[in-house]
Amino acid sequence: MEGYWGFLALLVSALLMGFLAVVFSLIWVLHYREGLGWDGTALEFNWHPVLMVTGFVFIQGIAIIVYRLPWTWKCSKLLMKSIHAGLNAIAAILAVISLVAVFDFHNTMNIPNMYSLHSWVGLIAVIYYILQLFLGFFVFLLPWAPLSLRSFLMPIHVYSGLLLFGTVIVTVLMGVTEKLIFVLKDPAYSSFPPEGIFTNTLGLLIVVFGALIFWIVTRPQWKRPKEPNSILLQSNGGAAEGPLAINTGNIDRADSELNSEAVARKRNFTLDEAGQRSTM
Amino acid sequence: MEGYWGFLALLVSALLMGFLAVVFSLIWVLHYREGLGWDGTALEFNWHPVLMVTGFVFIQGIAIIVYRLPWTWKCSKLLMKSIHAGLNAIAAILAVISLVAVFDFHNTMNIPNMYSLHSWVGLIAVIYYILQLFLGFFVFLLPWAPLSLRSFLMPIHVYSGLLLFGTVIVTVLMGVTEKLIFVLKDPAYSSFPPEGIFTNTLGLLIVVFGALIFWIVTRPQWKRPKEPNSILLQSNGGAAEGPLAINTGNIDRADSELNSEAVARKRNFTLDEAGQRSTM
Repeated sequence: MEGYWGFLALLVSALLMGFLAVVFSLIWVLHYREGLGWDGTALEFNWHPVLMVTGFVFIQGIAIIVYRLPWTWKCSKLLMKSIHAGLNAIAAILAVISLVAVFDFHNTMNIPNMYSLHSWVGLIAVIYYILQLFLGFFVFLLPWAPLSLRSFLMPIHVYSGLLLFGTVIVTVLMGVTEKLIFVLKDPAYSSFPPEGIFTNTLGLLIVVFGALIFWIVTRPQWKRPKEPNSILLQSNGGAAEGPLAINTGNIDRADSELNSEAVARKRNFTLDEAGQRSTM
Repeated sequence: MEGYWGFLALLVSALLMGFLAVVFSLIWVLHYREGLGWDGTALEFNWHPVLMVTGFVFIQGIAIIVYRLPWTWKCSKLLMKSIHAGLNAIAAILAVISLVAVFDFHNTMNIPNMYSLHSWVGLIAVIYYILQLFLGFFVFLLPWAPLSLRSFLMPIHVYSGLLLFGTVIVTVLMGVTEKLIFVLKDPAYSSFPPEGIFTNTLGLLIVVFGALIFWIVTRPQWKRPKEPNSILLQSNGGAAEGPLAINTGNIDRADSELNSEAVARKRNFTLDEAGQRSTM
């Protein structure tokens, strides 16, 4: 792998930022807020930031870069797709539980739902994320989708994934802003209380985590190498594209990869792989 | 251009969303808020959202995709760089005026500065944006930077530009959230007043504008074609990269483009081009 140590340094930094963000969200609700519970009060609401930061930020971020880990390049593509799908499924489940917590809290406390920009963008993101998860499962993980559909949808899947990750970060930072303004009254948020500074820092950690994930996932030299079959099957060598070409040659590439994958699947569809598939 | 009509439809949609966002920000402050002025009161604060949406969202978004407009592909790269730099400079100036407005308002009204997550992320974004502008001006627009420095910095420049655009959208949406919670007291934001729904819609327009700009700028088929010289000079044909390769072959490509550009500059540095340069 080209620039292995750079990759490693950025990966460790990203994991550290993401892990710290999860720890900060826990300290926020356990030390500065009321703690955690499931009784319709603020204790239940507090699951909302913790689960969103854990699932929708940290786990989603890891799911995005999982193909880039060079130690996994010996693993089958199917196994890696299953891990990618599995992590995204866990993130989606945590996001849904987190939404239940906040709706439950609002309903118990007679607080209206869905009036804020945070709630509008956030609900759209959760619905889009679940659609993306089902689309990915049926089109890319299960073996039945035609290659033409896969190659058509791949750039949309990749773009949607990154857009969703960005949108989730937007939503989380709006949520932090809302909550701090609502709860920091005495002392006020504007008087720089420790909770305000601590939770602003949580927001910055999330931004830095997102920036690191975006850098890692957009370096071409850290991409999972093509399967040997796909090089043989590739009909078009293509030309190197410029610095903005996220989907460079995606259709040719996707076609050839998918072709090779289809060939490999026909050839190697052993009980072992079938076993892997049954774990999804 | 491959998929010209699709490009045109998305470009028109992006321009419409961006233009509507600017109009919405004006209606927000002129119809729902106190209007505009420069007296240290809320009238002066109101320049903050208007100038940020106009400069830091709309104009920055256009600056990002300006190389993609097929009608400009006959123009020299230097002219297009100057337009890109000029639009970003306008955006930076509007952002700075917009910051002056909010600091002035805070100081006049004895409201503390820089306590919120919005202000932390926003100030970092403005400083980073200005650094990026100077770096772009000295390294990519002026002709003196060595090619090795240009090819090293190009992927960082592109990544920073897109990260900044995303971070600005995060910041604007936090700002909208803050302002609506601060001012919508009677009727409360949570009672779905027209101003709340209207300004939430402004937030959605900004998200959709950003999503369209990200789609347009990451399609490889809509990239400005290489200069003829760069193909001749290109030492490495490279292989088509996969759907996540934002910087596919950036160093080879940047080198060859920059080489060809340097050759072309030496060959074609006419009074006409010198005149264009003097417009920056």
